[in-house]
Amino acid sequence: MTDAAPHRPEDTYSYLGPAGTFTEAALKQVPEAAGKTWRSVNNVGEALADVTSGRSIAAVIAIENSIEGGVSATQDALATVPGLRIIGEYLVPVNFVLVARHGTALADVRTVNAHPVAYAQSRGWLERHLPEHGHIPASSNVQSAASLFEPDNTADAAVAPPGITDHHDVTVLARDIGDNPNAVTRFVLVSRSRALPEPTGADKTSLIVELPSDEPGALLAMLEQFSTRGVNLSLLESRPIGDALGRYRFVVDLDGHVADERVADALLGLRRTSPNVIFLGSYPRADQREIEYHAKYDDEIFIEARDWLRGLLSGEPD
Amino acid sequence: MTDAAPHRPEDTYSYLGPAGTFTEAALKQVPEAAGKTWRSVNNVGEALADVTSGRSIAAVIAIENSIEGGVSATQDALATVPGLRIIGEYLVPVNFVLVARHGTALADVRTVNAHPVAYAQSRGWLERHLPEHGHIPASSNVQSAASLFEPDNTADAAVAPPGITDHHDVTVLARDIGDNPNAVTRFVLVSRSRALPEPTGADKTSLIVELPSDEPGALLAMLEQFSTRGVNLSLLESRPIGDALGRYRFVVDLDGHVADERVADALLGLRRTSPNVIFLGSYPRADQREIEYHAKYDDEIFIEARDWLRGLLSGEPD
Amino acid sequence: MTDAAPHRPEDTYSYLGPAGTFTEAALKQVPEAAGKTWRSVNNVGEALADVTSGRSIAAVIAIENSIEGGVSATQDALATVPGLRIIGEYLVPVNFVLVARHGTALADVRTVNAHPVAYAQSRGWLERHLPEHGHIPASSNVQSAASLFEPDNTADAAVAPPGITDHHDVTVLARDIGDNPNAVTRFVLVSRSRALPEPTGADKTSLIVELPSDEPGALLAMLEQFSTRGVNLSLLESRPIGDALGRYRFVVDLDGHVADERVADALLGLRRTSPNVIFLGSYPRADQREIEYHAKYDDEIFIEARDWLRGLLSGEPD
Amino acid sequence: MTDAAPHRPEDTYSYLGPAGTFTEAALKQVPEAAGKTWRSVNNVGEALADVTSGRSIAAVIAIENSIEGGVSATQDALATVPGLRIIGEYLVPVNFVLVARHGTALADVRTVNAHPVAYAQSRGWLERHLPEHGHIPASSNVQSAASLFEPDNTADAAVAPPGITDHHDVTVLARDIGDNPNAVTRFVLVSRSRALPEPTGADKTSLIVELPSDEPGALLAMLEQFSTRGVNLSLLESRPIGDALGRYRFVVDLDGHVADERVADALLGLRRTSPNVIFLGSYPRADQREIEYHAKYDDEIFIEARDWLRGLLSGEPD
Repeated sequence: MTDAAPHRPEDTYSYLGPAGTFTEAALKQVPEAAGKTWRSVNNVGEALADVTSGRSIAAVIAIENSIEGGVSATQDALATVPGLRIIGEYLVPVNFVLVARHGTALADVRTVNAHPVAYAQSRGWLERHLPEHGHIPASSNVQSAASLFEPDNTADAAVAPPGITDHHDVTVLARDIGDNPNAVTRFVLVSRSRALPEPTGADKTSLIVELPSDEPGALLAMLEQFSTRGVNLSLLESRPIGDALGRYRFVVDLDGHVADERVADALLGLRRTSPNVIFLGSYPRADQREIEYHAKYDDEIFIEARDWLRGLLSGEPD
Repeated sequence: MTDAAPHRPEDTYSYLGPAGTFTEAALKQVPEAAGKTWRSVNNVGEALADVTSGRSIAAVIAIENSIEGGVSATQDALATVPGLRIIGEYLVPVNFVLVARHGTALADVRTVNAHPVAYAQSRGWLERHLPEHGHIPASSNVQSAASLFEPDNTADAAVAPPGITDHHDVTVLARDIGDNPNAVTRFVLVSRSRALPEPTGADKTSLIVELPSDEPGALLAMLEQFSTRGVNLSLLESRPIGDALGRYRFVVDLDGHVADERVADALLGLRRTSPNVIFLGSYPRADQREIEYHAKYDDEIFIEARDWLRGLLSGEPD
Repeated sequence: MTDAAPHRPEDTYSYLGPAGTFTEAALKQVPEAAGKTWRSVNNVGEALADVTSGRSIAAVIAIENSIEGGVSATQDALATVPGLRIIGEYLVPVNFVLVARHGTALADVRTVNAHPVAYAQSRGWLERHLPEHGHIPASSNVQSAASLFEPDNTADAAVAPPGITDHHDVTVLARDIGDNPNAVTRFVLVSRSRALPEPTGADKTSLIVELPSDEPGALLAMLEQFSTRGVNLSLLESRPIGDALGRYRFVVDLDGHVADERVADALLGLRRTSPNVIFLGSYPRADQREIEYHAKYDDEIFIEARDWLRGLLSGEPD
Repeated sequence: MTDAAPHRPEDTYSYLGPAGTFTEAALKQVPEAAGKTWRSVNNVGEALADVTSGRSIAAVIAIENSIEGGVSATQDALATVPGLRIIGEYLVPVNFVLVARHGTALADVRTVNAHPVAYAQSRGWLERHLPEHGHIPASSNVQSAASLFEPDNTADAAVAPPGITDHHDVTVLARDIGDNPNAVTRFVLVSRSRALPEPTGADKTSLIVELPSDEPGALLAMLEQFSTRGVNLSLLESRPIGDALGRYRFVVDLDGHVADERVADALLGLRRTSPNVIFLGSYPRADQREIEYHAKYDDEIFIEARDWLRGLLSGEPD
């Protein structure tokens, strides 16, 4: 877990650091990364650049938060950086502690360092317990605590992840200060690998789909590609394409693996009707919940139909 | 055109006779039947039995009338007799003449022989010109005229096709007595052949589709199988399955040939979702009107999508 | 039950006669017709003309048969004769007996009188028991038996309804000769009344809907008007409009009463999108089966939504 | 335009300040705010709290950016703060300048103050011209420049809106440093008023719609509520409800005014099928583009259908 060893890209995993972030907590869940080099980077763009350039074999990035929604920077990067594939998914419960330099009491706190997202998610607690506090935005959930020890620091406390005490010599003024106790962030492991993870029966497939801009019913038509094959969506988010107001692409997570016939057929339908479909990968779900679907969408139903059609076309007797 | 020659099934075409019927007029449009044996039968069931038993190579049967709608007997026979294929389509304008034995004047007519369908289609004329007439149902459009010469006949005139004078020594009391001058009947040529007629760009495909009985939106779902592939329907008729009120199968004619990718894909979708799909054939349209469809449903779009999916599944680079 | 009494239209019910037909069996089920004048007519057109002209207060006509499907003549008449309303529905089991003049045995039968529909429905039995028989078409199910006593009759037996022995002095050669023991015909009572029968919770609404001819997805759009309000269809039949091949109107029976909010709202949607909607009536179902639908389509849901919208438009506080 | 005067809520407009922000540029477009008190606040929450508490008559807030997408904080606030209505919409082109204290040259710049969103939108320019720069996050686009004059400041330059020179004594090192020259932000004016702005023919209606969580086709069904009334959507964004992953509400902008019949009817359909619909207002579009829709969705079509239905229900003759 250090960069001191000679750099071996195939043994390196990039993540949004520094050590102690929620992203690092996600990386700890990746079995194949255990004992390898973990490379801390400053933002999603750097993490993905490591992967595309071959500097790392894979990167862990946050893709969705149960409170904040989709992580726009990740969604937009996956839509525009070619050659990436999601090969794993991990869930990290999100909660926060309020920390300070030793000797500081809660009553002493006037100003709080916090990443804007962490601040938003613990604001209720802060307003109840520190109604007069000021906020200084930090560039990460770990930097907020690290800054307490910097020369130009003016804050008295910091909002940080629970694991912060492993990395910084701070005292914990309060635990579980997040406003929503069930908050969770979803992370994905991204690589350049073309090989698909094996279907497990509890898989997810991620896509980015652009809609034809001149057709009013285009979104409806896209959704029908899924519904007519019994494919359920667990995520559908719009993102602006960015060239003009009113033009969107959609980030889609669906239940199932591209090796499932119903998913493959839905992808064919999408590919035909969308100006641009990006396949981001099929991979095991973090929650390992088995996909349920109606028996009429079983693989054998699709295979039997193709056999029947082949018979018609070849002129075989029924 | 006689049954006297030794019977050769491969040279025999069955049709609803006798000579002079509209069905014979349709058979005259079949190029491959020219100079072959034409076998007159009494009803659709006999015509199809000739084909399934191998007694005839093919049969011409009426399938739809612009006034009366689908011919139920034909639709039900095609739904229940296995092994049949439609290989051609023909349109015959439908009009009628009023004929009588020589010496009869229009003013003398009290009672009219007419097949019930012909009677229905010329009833407006008859009620205007013969307000007091009685009607005796005939078993065919030719038998109505033939009956005038039978010993127990009590009719004075008969409703018959224009060609009746080629076959019976009658006088024409009035022409064009049909109430709708644009009436037309559609006939099909039915065989046991498994070989599909070549696509021409102006083709029609006929199906019979049963719907799952326990799903309220089943018809909607069936229609979406066509609409999501840009396949237009030229005919959609419901027919009772016959085992209980409220259970239906659908007779469908669609624009295109099963060798067209968009049609083939729609058939796959139908086969998967319907408990029973009967493929009745793909064949050139009688009106030779070229099929129009949006470029996004071109064959190459389907082929490209399959290639893309195959690449994903095989792990090839994009 | 006689025409001898002075004619009182408000006490007269027309039906397809003569006495002994299945239509008469349906009329016997109409409570309000008991003890009134029953007027036998020759066809659906006459029956409806009696109603529109005011000669009768109502008429009973066959509308659908579980084997043959919709009765085209009835459907087309309801589509084109203005001012009619269905006010009741009745089911009559359809089976047949084979009858003959006294002294005739089954083995003597060479030729059979039968209405074409009755013949089609008992043909299996006839071919098994009388493989050599000939068929003479009759103009009604009662006329087939009556003809046995006419001077020019050449038939030995007749296919007729079970009640025929009440009206004609015939001997029954065989009972239950219909090929389908569950066959049933649906009849409706038609009047000019504008008053709607009270909702019973087990109602049916009948419509005839024409589709805009230039829109490919028009049928799909029509069906969505029902499905988005949770309205189930028990009948959907296409009928040619008759002016050209490929132009259809649809005969629709739906579950519920126009006084039900979900039905009323679906009718609004249809009226807006169809060039022609004919409301044929809301009336109690013959089978008295209570209509089931999802609670989200309850009347109060519709009423609450209208109240909410009215509040928005009037500027009331929420 | 000062807080010095006695506070009169009905003359006060809140906005995300300080003076010089893009939000102030939007407020300058609001005719009714001219000459009134403009109250600068620190975030969207404060702005909306001013409105709900009655401290201000209205507030201007950013709702969507052509690059970044919907402003989550605004969307979530509108979904959860009751009693708010959008009454106007304004578009502000978004571009940036790089500013510094007098005497600083571009070559001197090591570290840049910038609000994270501004930084993301000018990062391409910064990486090309200042490849070695560091970034200090600022809490607003104006604070970035103001910080240059604070005692603990360590930055050499700031990314700021073009109007910054009206408020701070800085020198402009570079203009138009935004990566997308067409970037634009959409602002809305929010009040507590229940009165609806008059329809102009170029209106927009904003909604927040929650979907029933247990129905797979719920989004499809929601979209059909619009498509079956010819109502076009200009915005559809999902936002997590926040209580669990996979639960979403949708932010919808549609073409038209709730006083338009087709819009009103779509709202009725939504209200019936959604567990929660928040009506955020109907108001004139900033771009003044007239709404186009098919004539079959004209107001009179809806009115005529209601009249027809009323006639049916009341028993009037057609």
